[in-house]
Amino acid sequence: MRDVAIIGVGCTNFGEMWERSFRDLFVEAGLNALEDAGTRGEDIEALYVGNMSAGKFIDQEHIGALIADYAGLAGSLHIPSTRVEAACASGGLALRDGVMVVASGLHDIVIAAGVEKMTDVETGVTIDALASAADREWEGFMGATFPGLYAMMARLHMHKYGTTREQLATVAVKNHHNATMNPKAQYRKDITIEEVMNSPLVADPLRVYDCSPITDGAAAVVLAPAELARKLNDAPIYVHASAQASDTITLHDRRDITTLDATVYAAKRAYEMAGISPKDVDVAEVHDCFTIAEICAIEDLGFVQKGDGGPATEEGMTALGGKIPINPSGGLKACGHPVGATGIKQAIEIAEQLRGDVRERQVNGAEIGLTHNVGGTGGTAVVHILSVNKR
Amino acid sequence: MRDVAIIGVGCTNFGEMWERSFRDLFVEAGLNALEDAGTRGEDIEALYVGNMSAGKFIDQEHIGALIADYAGLAGSLHIPSTRVEAACASGGLALRDGVMVVASGLHDIVIAAGVEKMTDVETGVTIDALASAADREWEGFMGATFPGLYAMMARLHMHKYGTTREQLATVAVKNHHNATMNPKAQYRKDITIEEVMNSPLVADPLRVYDCSPITDGAAAVVLAPAELARKLNDAPIYVHASAQASDTITLHDRRDITTLDATVYAAKRAYEMAGISPKDVDVAEVHDCFTIAEICAIEDLGFVQKGDGGPATEEGMTALGGKIPINPSGGLKACGHPVGATGIKQAIEIAEQLRGDVRERQVNGAEIGLTHNVGGTGGTAVVHILSVNKR
Repeated sequence: MRDVAIIGVGCTNFGEMWERSFRDLFVEAGLNALEDAGTRGEDIEALYVGNMSAGKFIDQEHIGALIADYAGLAGSLHIPSTRVEAACASGGLALRDGVMVVASGLHDIVIAAGVEKMTDVETGVTIDALASAADREWEGFMGATFPGLYAMMARLHMHKYGTTREQLATVAVKNHHNATMNPKAQYRKDITIEEVMNSPLVADPLRVYDCSPITDGAAAVVLAPAELARKLNDAPIYVHASAQASDTITLHDRRDITTLDATVYAAKRAYEMAGISPKDVDVAEVHDCFTIAEICAIEDLGFVQKGDGGPATEEGMTALGGKIPINPSGGLKACGHPVGATGIKQAIEIAEQLRGDVRERQVNGAEIGLTHNVGGTGGTAVVHILSVNKR
Repeated sequence: MRDVAIIGVGCTNFGEMWERSFRDLFVEAGLNALEDAGTRGEDIEALYVGNMSAGKFIDQEHIGALIADYAGLAGSLHIPSTRVEAACASGGLALRDGVMVVASGLHDIVIAAGVEKMTDVETGVTIDALASAADREWEGFMGATFPGLYAMMARLHMHKYGTTREQLATVAVKNHHNATMNPKAQYRKDITIEEVMNSPLVADPLRVYDCSPITDGAAAVVLAPAELARKLNDAPIYVHASAQASDTITLHDRRDITTLDATVYAAKRAYEMAGISPKDVDVAEVHDCFTIAEICAIEDLGFVQKGDGGPATEEGMTALGGKIPINPSGGLKACGHPVGATGIKQAIEIAEQLRGDVRERQVNGAEIGLTHNVGGTGGTAVVHILSVNKR
């Protein structure tokens, strides 16, 4: 297998885009990525797109053909275009498929993208579409929504490890602060612990400010073989690992609902592929769909011991300037969470961090970064490790 | 890239399965494929599943995790499991992704599967879900459904090439006849030209018997590297080509609506990969979602000249015993069309033909076979070439 590099990145603003369409958002992200890479549409040999639920959000399937068409790559170049779906991990899987096809030697220059337009339907439809990432027959049918499922994880985490309500709040406060420095973020304002603690209760113990928002957005990266990357672009970022794992789709079938085994296995495989350990990672974007999810993630990825996620966050270990800055983009919580696009946006943030391109929110001297994207309550997890250094 | 082989196949019956669930169907097909391959669940390293619209048909996304879970491969083995979607070409794309990941060297033994449960919702929902394979804003919004879109292709084909209504009917008659010899087919009964011509009009000139049905079903194949295949299984079938192409999702943007350029390009790439020409193909399963679609397919795949599809069918060239037997399984028309599963079922039929396993419907001495799977009106096409011979 060949080594692969990211040679271009492009991302729309994240937020409620009332005057933009699904296809519009994709095209903006794709064109930005092409421009950033210094490549042209004619150079693209294949397209992978992560999207969770366009069927429900915009009444449209066959997303691969749709975006290839609107990007001008279908009717003339007839390139293969594939949609992959794994709920909120769809973007991460699109990146993995893109990496794989370049690694295999079949294609050289490929776009991996993600897009979701979530605000064109009423909120009830959105909530129901998101609930379809859980087991409809055993979880959705009983009325479980995602805040409810993650609330159970939070409750048990508090019970087993003494994690406090305030520690959950510190995740939101940190990520909102990071987002104030990200011009593409949905919420660019600081919040306080008190504001989180006093925000409306959604599913005890989770409150509104513990939850990631409903977001429109698209993100795209251009991939190329590592041996060509330098010829095409001045600042390629190398993919040292791409690993994916699954777990039971239902929470009640897990051995322990405070641990996402899919994360544990995907991370283990990724560290092995990259030949590194968690302590070598300088910066990470993790899947903070709820504040508790970031605490579980930093534990399951091996940045802290199991149960230490709350105190570590409270002590500032994961803040900018801390030992391992987590979610400098603002994360899903404050940058926003257009579900199919999130996994790609994470890779863009890490690529830009490693390039040294993100100004106030820069993690100085970062050379190795990690992205962690989860589907559902952890039925799917995908981990990528990126580096400034060619292997 | 490594060569890849199919070492096991499994398929449910196709039809209206009122007492079976989506997950049920998948597990049956998967277990049959494992048994046929002589492998165990523990040997499987990754799972790819084609599914078009479980979000609408069974209110469920995150299909990869769901089926890995119900197949017993998620909670213990934590293997990566990925859903791919390209409307009715979803199965073909799942096969292509599976082939690619084995070819790349990342995984050895992989399942590629497809599944669709279409009958659990009322017909209006089914029709609307299928319409989401076309451009919702330019086609669906105007009231175009798939019979309507294919009817326009048929009308122009009749106008340009003199294709007759009776020639369209011969496609249905042939495929129904083939299905009488397929115990898994949805419609195992012969029909006559007169019955087709007198069946209710759906979208002029297409009548009920010109249309593939609504079907539940699942299909799975086990893939392995060609160099290991013989050790694992007595009768591996080798994948000589896997090619995919896109076209505009809308019909009105095409240069010619009687030609599916996605098919033309996918076929061209596939013939190049396999180092063969259309005349080397002994048997093919093509995407006959409507009778006109089979006529376009045999032209666009190069089995006959453009415009000659109608007469060739009428003269028996594509019947069992003809020069190039098409859709010996009964095709989408009579074997049934569970949209996400169809592309995999096509590969199973060809693999079994090449093994010499299909009794009365056997194409004698077949050594090279082709599958052709289409999404929408040709926004996506994928072509696989299979052979009994190792490359």
